[in-house]
Amino acid sequence: MSAEILSIGSELVSGRIADTNAAYLSDQLLRLGYEVTRHTAVDDRCAEIAAAIREIAARAKLCIVTGGLGPTRDDETRQVFAELTGTGLKEDAETVRRIESVFAMRGMKPSESNYGQAQYPANGAVLRNPAGTAAGFKVAVDGCQFYCLPGVPHEMKTMFHESVEPALRAKSPGVRLVRSLHLYGIPESVIGEKLYDVMAEDHNPSVATQASSGIITVRLTARGESEEKARGLIMECERTVRARLEEGIFGADGQTLAEAVAALLARRGMTLAVAESCTGGGITAELTDVPGISQWLLEGVVTYSNESKQRRVGVKAETLAKFGAVSAETTKEMASGIRESSGADIGLSVTGIAGPAGGSDKKPVGLIYFGLAHGDGVLAEEARVPGARTVVKDRAVKRALNMLRLYLVERAGVNG
Amino acid sequence: MSAEILSIGSELVSGRIADTNAAYLSDQLLRLGYEVTRHTAVDDRCAEIAAAIREIAARAKLCIVTGGLGPTRDDETRQVFAELTGTGLKEDAETVRRIESVFAMRGMKPSESNYGQAQYPANGAVLRNPAGTAAGFKVAVDGCQFYCLPGVPHEMKTMFHESVEPALRAKSPGVRLVRSLHLYGIPESVIGEKLYDVMAEDHNPSVATQASSGIITVRLTARGESEEKARGLIMECERTVRARLEEGIFGADGQTLAEAVAALLARRGMTLAVAESCTGGGITAELTDVPGISQWLLEGVVTYSNESKQRRVGVKAETLAKFGAVSAETTKEMASGIRESSGADIGLSVTGIAGPAGGSDKKPVGLIYFGLAHGDGVLAEEARVPGARTVVKDRAVKRALNMLRLYLVERAGVNG
Repeated sequence: MSAEILSIGSELVSGRIADTNAAYLSDQLLRLGYEVTRHTAVDDRCAEIAAAIREIAARAKLCIVTGGLGPTRDDETRQVFAELTGTGLKEDAETVRRIESVFAMRGMKPSESNYGQAQYPANGAVLRNPAGTAAGFKVAVDGCQFYCLPGVPHEMKTMFHESVEPALRAKSPGVRLVRSLHLYGIPESVIGEKLYDVMAEDHNPSVATQASSGIITVRLTARGESEEKARGLIMECERTVRARLEEGIFGADGQTLAEAVAALLARRGMTLAVAESCTGGGITAELTDVPGISQWLLEGVVTYSNESKQRRVGVKAETLAKFGAVSAETTKEMASGIRESSGADIGLSVTGIAGPAGGSDKKPVGLIYFGLAHGDGVLAEEARVPGARTVVKDRAVKRALNMLRLYLVERAGVNG
Repeated sequence: MSAEILSIGSELVSGRIADTNAAYLSDQLLRLGYEVTRHTAVDDRCAEIAAAIREIAARAKLCIVTGGLGPTRDDETRQVFAELTGTGLKEDAETVRRIESVFAMRGMKPSESNYGQAQYPANGAVLRNPAGTAAGFKVAVDGCQFYCLPGVPHEMKTMFHESVEPALRAKSPGVRLVRSLHLYGIPESVIGEKLYDVMAEDHNPSVATQASSGIITVRLTARGESEEKARGLIMECERTVRARLEEGIFGADGQTLAEAVAALLARRGMTLAVAESCTGGGITAELTDVPGISQWLLEGVVTYSNESKQRRVGVKAETLAKFGAVSAETTKEMASGIRESSGADIGLSVTGIAGPAGGSDKKPVGLIYFGLAHGDGVLAEEARVPGARTVVKDRAVKRALNMLRLYLVERAGVNG
């Protein structure tokens, strides 16, 4: 069943805040089996709100509305729905009591505008708010069911789960399951070609790709009459996708590269130390987002100056003079040096030119060298990473983590 | 002039990601004097996209479109506009060259689907993409000017500023100036009380606050017949705000705490070295986002284990045994140790419990100690930071940077 989200508030259309409510609600509806086809955000003028409601009622059967239920004069969602449905407003006695008790706790009395938050369109039904003072409501317009919730995220979420979700679950048109696979190192265009057939618009599960900070996510969404059928479709499609993209998939359902690396370090029982130059601590910062990593990550050094590279990890002055700080030779000595001085099983290193300054014809901005020292030797990789300084840093962090991941995967010939 | 934003992508309407592009573009358009009245997000089906474009063309004179320009078969923005305007697609030779050179850098050849990214509707004009492979374009539909940009945020932003902003600025219908002041260390409620009068709804400039990751932004938006008048209103209001919040304001118009710190280090001509434990390299990772920081930041160490704290920065075994790794004594020795071993003017340190494990009754999760060693001694601060592991890390990074900022500000009695 097709559903839409309507968000009301000048803070949204003016760009003051991003509409995270719409994303949250879409995700929830999808899991309940409803397909959200459109998000609309309008500011809090009555005419704009009424126009959006009429359009949505003509397209969809279900709409979740957030915002415009506050106590101030620019909150007019109630009035607009009352006018559209040609009925007046009713007051909910229990919400009135709640408003009075919330104000009493603060030693205050509610004003007339506060009492307005207890009202709802007379031919709808109230949705009570256990987390705030604004009542919500549900009301039908031209055969489309609208559920109106406050815009404050934690109030909206509480009310959605208490008052809306049970009703939607009871009427759910089917089951929808979602599975996300995350990849690094394969261009989105190559993934698109390898998955061309399963990405057809009418394929079930639907298959879509999305790129974010160098990570490509392949998302499978299966529709089925039962959870069992949907799960079967997902599993079959995931096998197909894995068979075609195997080496590039590092995780699923929100797992990060750092989490994948941490899990592999734990599985191998190997410790790590990191020497970073251009990434400035970004590798250890990502790894330390993972709880329990202190068991495997011994230390990191950010050897930002040449002196630091020599003193902290023993890069030779001759190496720096002959090959430069940004070179395969230097990154290898960094990797070996941090491995030896820390006593870790693996030393990981990166040195490069993040820009915007510091580049030359021979060594342009975005040139990065990665090193990985292990018990049997040292690996080095060169890469050219285009983009602005923070993009270069971020991509270099991801590539270093992926180099480590591939080493840990291949080491035991398993697919991480 | 009324403007709208159209975002295309199943990742948006399915709730996988929030539409931060729409918020960014609305904010930019507001600064340019255009009023955004609606945001629409649709998934990547041709019929949905075409319907949304037709509706917008009937309501607005300007629309920025993001998304649907990728190389895979679910990216159809180009085709939809070509069909709506009844013309075919043209190929932009310069974008073709760019695609080929980007692939050549990776040692690969573009596929047919990659070349599709160089196409644009024949009766529009190409907008080149210096940050990626997808060309954008502008095209008019029923008198509404559409600018189509990629959905990848950094590509979208680069293209907006290079190709769209200059054209919009030239046609701007009025003046609206925006000034943002960024604060750290003062609760949003206290700021709201101190600015109660200027935050009135009809105040010009309008004044609003917004909290994000511990940073509070006070945003002034002035309307005026001329730029001069609007600028005068902003300057007067900014003086009022600064007089009331002085010590908490670290920057303006998007400046980060790390940029404020870097500017102060440069102004004082002082060098820095950092020893981190629970923040895991997050402090140096943020500082190294600032171009040119290599002149002031000598090095960092992530002393994640006790052994590393002893070996890298000379924390005494007795100190660790008597007071523990998370203590004022240890953080002071870390700060002094990194200062001395690096030869920097200032040593900054942090040690704490990021969680979720590792806490105790005496030393709970979120307990953090900060240290700052300078020529005349060592400072230490204790803080309790609530929240999940990544939140604790992020807040500890910001607080450490702010401690350093306040030291650098006070050192010469100036207001940074």
